[in-house]
Amino acid sequence: MKAIMLGIALPLALTGIAIGSAAFDSAKIIDLTHSFDKHTIYWPTEGSFHHEWEHFGPTPGGYFYSSAKYAAAEHGGTHMDAPLHFNRQGDSVDKVALGNCIGPAAVIDFSARAAKDPNATLSVADIEQYEKANGAIPDGAIVVARSGWGKFWPDKKRYLGTDKPGDVAGLRFPGFSSEGLKYLLEHRKVAAIAIDTASIDPGISKEFLAHRVWLGANKPAFENVANAERLPARGATIFCIPTKIGDGTGAPTRIFALLP
Amino acid sequence: MKAIMLGIALPLALTGIAIGSAAFDSAKIIDLTHSFDKHTIYWPTEGSFHHEWEHFGPTPGGYFYSSAKYAAAEHGGTHMDAPLHFNRQGDSVDKVALGNCIGPAAVIDFSARAAKDPNATLSVADIEQYEKANGAIPDGAIVVARSGWGKFWPDKKRYLGTDKPGDVAGLRFPGFSSEGLKYLLEHRKVAAIAIDTASIDPGISKEFLAHRVWLGANKPAFENVANAERLPARGATIFCIPTKIGDGTGAPTRIFALLP
Repeated sequence: MKAIMLGIALPLALTGIAIGSAAFDSAKIIDLTHSFDKHTIYWPTEGSFHHEWEHFGPTPGGYFYSSAKYAAAEHGGTHMDAPLHFNRQGDSVDKVALGNCIGPAAVIDFSARAAKDPNATLSVADIEQYEKANGAIPDGAIVVARSGWGKFWPDKKRYLGTDKPGDVAGLRFPGFSSEGLKYLLEHRKVAAIAIDTASIDPGISKEFLAHRVWLGANKPAFENVANAERLPARGATIFCIPTKIGDGTGAPTRIFALLP
Repeated sequence: MKAIMLGIALPLALTGIAIGSAAFDSAKIIDLTHSFDKHTIYWPTEGSFHHEWEHFGPTPGGYFYSSAKYAAAEHGGTHMDAPLHFNRQGDSVDKVALGNCIGPAAVIDFSARAAKDPNATLSVADIEQYEKANGAIPDGAIVVARSGWGKFWPDKKRYLGTDKPGDVAGLRFPGFSSEGLKYLLEHRKVAAIAIDTASIDPGISKEFLAHRVWLGANKPAFENVANAERLPARGATIFCIPTKIGDGTGAPTRIFALLP
């Protein structure tokens, strides 16, 4: 789709997004969300996503009707970690402003290192290298750590490091370093972080420092991002839109990007 | 927030939305979603939204941790009706393209008539009157029927017409007319419809013609929209972003608008 270059004045406000009345171009949208179904990956201590038909078929009125119900843990599949997850004073899902769930995507790739070491974490050096190539991470950005792990979904053994129920000791996958997150908090104005693994902490973590640092700063995080390999390093706008669960510590989240 | 007028070239593509790298302006976002909690309104035949703590408090590691699980019927609260709900060949929630969930909001108000008659439905005349004042409904629009019923939430008796479990005969609230929907399907290119009541059919309906007509055309609908009174008649971009439930006939949906 060829971009239309406009030389006219446009009201942009500070959103970076101009609102128009034209039809929406689906070809510019990348869905970064795994479906919630029986294959959805949850923490080894949790059950799977439950979807149960209430009705599926013809009705006495002669028309087709179907409906179902669902049940799951908050923290599984493509989802938000609300600050409340590790921060008693932090916002629950319903309290996180949508403005902090939408922003320019700064996609920092560390997949080459992660391919050699499943305990790899996104470091300060990774951030510095990204900015050298792409310019400073913009204010309001959502930083996406790309480990390359998305390609293992929904194979639990490869994605989590273990497919045994309850086996938290067997978890092995990349994450954020707490040093990298402290650097972002001190030196950049980032709205949220996201990653294509099951947790912002690496699987091997026992202290969950990434969670404690980032959610401790009352900022949301997003886990199990799908299709991250389709994101450009910069230039896309990413939307991480959670189900509005009251008092939620986490929630299923529809993540998608609009390409430039 | 004062708009910045840009005279420079911007890549707009055909989305009507220009992607930038600036921080996101929360003041331009209206959240049109009711929270999912014990007050969330479901059909009289369904239970309420279930949210259950798994942990809430200090851990042996010395840090705070909380998590929970949830369960509900697909059709309650602010949610999508996927075409599959009344159309065996229709798309399930996970198959509906996000491009059909985002578009210019055409907000058609029929609250004056609804205030006098809870069985009022959005008619062809309402659509014609809207277009006379606001111009033609644009391609890709999401038509929001504004009945004024949102102000009754979460009072079931006033919002649904009944607060008795199982009392479907007592349902009374406004909806779409099937004639109005047929008119939109034949004469306009609308992506989706939405309403600030519990159903696109009026509560008194027994034949669910609005559902059968609209979902029958393989198009999604959104129900229980919140804060519709804050939407301008035209000019906002509305996002109706469902939880990606595999085989879902419906799903909790985060609906929000970006103001012009």
